[in-house]
Amino acid sequence: VDDSVEELQRRAAPDPQVIRLGGGLPAPEQFPRAPLARAFLRALDDAAAPALQYGFPEGSARLRRFVADSLQARGAAVDAGEVIITSGAQQALAIALEIACRPGDRVGVDRTTYPAALDLLRTRHLLPVVNGDESPRRRAVAAAPDAAAVRARYCMPALGNPSGRGLDLRARRGLLAGGGAIIEDDAYADLRFDGPAPIPLLALGRERVFHLGTWSKTLCPGLRVGWLVPPRRHLARALRIKRDSDLQANSMAQAIVDDYLASVDFGARLVRLRRFYRQRAARMARALTRHLPSWHFCMPQGGFAIWVEADVAADERALLDAAFDEGVVFDPGSQFRAGGAATPLAMRLCFSAVPADALEEGVRRLARAWRRLGERPRMPLTPALSPSETGRG
Amino acid sequence: VDDSVEELQRRAAPDPQVIRLGGGLPAPEQFPRAPLARAFLRALDDAAAPALQYGFPEGSARLRRFVADSLQARGAAVDAGEVIITSGAQQALAIALEIACRPGDRVGVDRTTYPAALDLLRTRHLLPVVNGDESPRRRAVAAAPDAAAVRARYCMPALGNPSGRGLDLRARRGLLAGGGAIIEDDAYADLRFDGPAPIPLLALGRERVFHLGTWSKTLCPGLRVGWLVPPRRHLARALRIKRDSDLQANSMAQAIVDDYLASVDFGARLVRLRRFYRQRAARMARALTRHLPSWHFCMPQGGFAIWVEADVAADERALLDAAFDEGVVFDPGSQFRAGGAATPLAMRLCFSAVPADALEEGVRRLARAWRRLGERPRMPLTPALSPSETGRG
Repeated sequence: VDDSVEELQRRAAPDPQVIRLGGGLPAPEQFPRAPLARAFLRALDDAAAPALQYGFPEGSARLRRFVADSLQARGAAVDAGEVIITSGAQQALAIALEIACRPGDRVGVDRTTYPAALDLLRTRHLLPVVNGDESPRRRAVAAAPDAAAVRARYCMPALGNPSGRGLDLRARRGLLAGGGAIIEDDAYADLRFDGPAPIPLLALGRERVFHLGTWSKTLCPGLRVGWLVPPRRHLARALRIKRDSDLQANSMAQAIVDDYLASVDFGARLVRLRRFYRQRAARMARALTRHLPSWHFCMPQGGFAIWVEADVAADERALLDAAFDEGVVFDPGSQFRAGGAATPLAMRLCFSAVPADALEEGVRRLARAWRRLGERPRMPLTPALSPSETGRG
Repeated sequence: VDDSVEELQRRAAPDPQVIRLGGGLPAPEQFPRAPLARAFLRALDDAAAPALQYGFPEGSARLRRFVADSLQARGAAVDAGEVIITSGAQQALAIALEIACRPGDRVGVDRTTYPAALDLLRTRHLLPVVNGDESPRRRAVAAAPDAAAVRARYCMPALGNPSGRGLDLRARRGLLAGGGAIIEDDAYADLRFDGPAPIPLLALGRERVFHLGTWSKTLCPGLRVGWLVPPRRHLARALRIKRDSDLQANSMAQAIVDDYLASVDFGARLVRLRRFYRQRAARMARALTRHLPSWHFCMPQGGFAIWVEADVAADERALLDAAFDEGVVFDPGSQFRAGGAATPLAMRLCFSAVPADALEEGVRRLARAWRRLGERPRMPLTPALSPSETGRG
């Protein structure tokens, strides 16, 4: 992520006047505060207070069982003993990459993908190449010797971020037909608008797939509790890397999630969340159609965002600055592309954490910024961002 | 850590009949449950609920300020912006080693040291060598070319684990006189029985020292909140590694610690904790003198444990098995030695989480196990541990 873009996003974060259509945050009004508070108080009642004490590196036995049961219900052969509770899905991804790849390796990624995964690849000296299975043209690329040499493929088959779309059967087959490890990021799988999570790639390639997930989207991200199911032969090493990294996921959040899952109907919660986010998605789609009819997008199948493309080579950074001036921010599309390309102009617009009225107003402000850009195509940086600030870090 | 030893410790953990003189856990009755519960409920009251939401990778601004203020009060030039909140001190150590060392490097460690640090060195293909400054004989070794070639030195100057002793002025000077980076683990610094934490090495070598600490010992480990102060030139990279590893330390624990520190007199808590653990240390020392007069130890200057040596080549594993039979477990000394040597027989005996009566009884059981070992010096594995179990992992 470009440092000056991050600086702008940080400036926008605490400003109540700015509508944030970026960030990928879950809706705070959907955090189950009262049940979480009850879970915490119950955990404190225990004399030995395991919620406050050290725990084992693999994590809570009941959480591991919950993950294994969920995956079994989706057709994957997973025992509770094969699940590692991690400090969020990001740590699971870091562990999977450490096992599957060596510096210099090529790693397949979706055409648009999770920016923190791209950052991690960069830090580890891994070269992202686009998974070759999403279009006939790209399939041809995938058949070339270079593309075949990827060491691992990182993907979000159930639901992509930022695309908001799941992979179709052909794309899934393409991933499985390619060689190397598959890192299946299932973060949004439970938030498909059309119902329960689909069959994971893990069910079709138990010994090649590193499967990772999280409660960050369906409960709250601040807990930092996720999981990793590695291929069985890598389980011991994955657990060692986990322990070396930070000993264990935090006991308190694990105890709270554990108690919460045991005391509520989590499936019913997921049904409510899907309806809630589907409504927000529809509202944003309507606002886009109304106020920015020249932009295009695919209606998301789930998740938190709509991926929008303008099909022109406008200046992404200038649009971001103009939008900030108008009181709205978004996630620039270049952050989601392996090569960092800003063309064609694209962006991730998150509907997840924005109330209905603000959603429409945010899109309206974005449309105003877009019109201003049309008037002055090569807009300079706004005075609000002085060179010394944009040069930070 | 030997897998079969870990297996035994895991079997002992849930058994109320077994007195655990190992583990290095803080006393659960010292967890400030009511204030933590109040802090959590207050954090949930916030409409935006930052305690449940994503946060920035560097962590809470107020916690960073608290750490910087504490270190400034001890003479180190640290700004809040130079502190990274980590997922416990272990993560801070992992980041420091990643920056300071490359695979194959030699890393200095104290003669007895933190086992998870030794594990991490092993995984990273780093070779531990004993810091050469603890005795005149070792100083001579340090002067040899090989010893000078260590890339970094890991140490606990304020208070060692398991030694329970701080480094004296000569040893501190020796560390600073050696080349390379210094990784200063300050985990127990606030729990010296004689009063406030001493001047850290960070104050004497701001541009060479990676300083790390944690609230695990003084509040509760289950929160997993620690910190890293890297040399300034490594700050950006350290932050990038932190973000790539797990995005951020968990927001909930950060919010709770933040609120807790703002609402209590933390200095007064430290005074109480020092007295509490000093009393437990004295009790264990008396029990050892009474029941195991042939063993010797230095009275700890703080922390959670006494490092005991028997000065004989007894079979460590046999003693552990005999002790488990008698209903007591301890941390075998070999785990704390860079080379894994089990001779002379040594162990870490933790007084921290054991009530007064159980402390004396635990040492009595240990003495019984020791006498049994004297009767049968080459004791086989107990039947309780079958070969298949000990062969796990």
